[in-house]
Amino acid sequence: MLGNDYAAQDCSIARALEVVGERWTLLLLRDAFLGVRRFNDFQVHLDIPRGVLAERLRHLVADGVLRREPDPADGRSAVYELTPEGRELWPVLHALTVWGGRRRAGAGRRRFLHVPCGTELDAQAACPACGVVPPAADVLTTYGAARSDARTDRVSVALREPRRLLAPLDAAA
Amino acid sequence: MLGNDYAAQDCSIARALEVVGERWTLLLLRDAFLGVRRFNDFQVHLDIPRGVLAERLRHLVADGVLRREPDPADGRSAVYELTPEGRELWPVLHALTVWGGRRRAGAGRRRFLHVPCGTELDAQAACPACGVVPPAADVLTTYGAARSDARTDRVSVALREPRRLLAPLDAAA
Repeated sequence: MLGNDYAAQDCSIARALEVVGERWTLLLLRDAFLGVRRFNDFQVHLDIPRGVLAERLRHLVADGVLRREPDPADGRSAVYELTPEGRELWPVLHALTVWGGRRRAGAGRRRFLHVPCGTELDAQAACPACGVVPPAADVLTTYGAARSDARTDRVSVALREPRRLLAPLDAAA
Repeated sequence: MLGNDYAAQDCSIARALEVVGERWTLLLLRDAFLGVRRFNDFQVHLDIPRGVLAERLRHLVADGVLRREPDPADGRSAVYELTPEGRELWPVLHALTVWGGRRRAGAGRRRFLHVPCGTELDAQAACPACGVVPPAADVLTTYGAARSDARTDRVSVALREPRRLLAPLDAAA
């Protein structure tokens, strides 16, 4: 039941789900787009067992979605960054966000703005003012007022500040 | 591990994944967009245990993504159709298809065309000729030559014919 093999399903969606369809993987990738790079930061924010997180990261590196590099702040540990292939998942994450948030009002609502012009992206992740679909690096995200029961871990708090996608989160471990 | 509760993750993606993030659910919804409506047709095509399929369908009905109706061909059984809310998942499915198929050549490649003009949709599911994002019902899908190891069940064969999204598949059970 937990396998990730949809080999008998000859379709591109099945191929995508073999890479990103496991539980927690898309939330982990959401965090990577928000700038989370360190194991401990993923762990604090996702609040999942370390073994599960390690296994998900290992798969994503093996599948070419994430790249594991020495931590510039501490060469003995590592940071995980989206590869160009991983960055192409931005429209998937954006479409899920739009669908999941379609009935959500201000509190806890994340918005996505095109950096050069400040216009909010439309449901297709396009900038209506510029007529382009900006790459994730050109997108600023903001967060509405936190819900009263919002998480208070240091990563959650940092990610509620306005931030550019893919800009490294510097919360140390 | 198999739960679908991401309650501690206050984000719209987590809300979406609570509804569609379980294993097989997005492939089941892919089939629904392709016109599959009957339990046996889903089962033949997905080739998963009947209990798993029944549980997934039950959840999607409870969550308002699918609607369960009496089968017009046989009032004792049922058909499952996407609700308006479920149809809004089309951009998610399309984005996954684009990402999963980005290195895929002709064989087994599914294309999506805007019905009124025949133009292929772009990566954002928009029609470049008309400048609109067509609803799923206005999209025609075609399939490249089947791979040599493609599935030969009757539903797979039927779904390789050109078809309009959401048009009911009439393969009887």
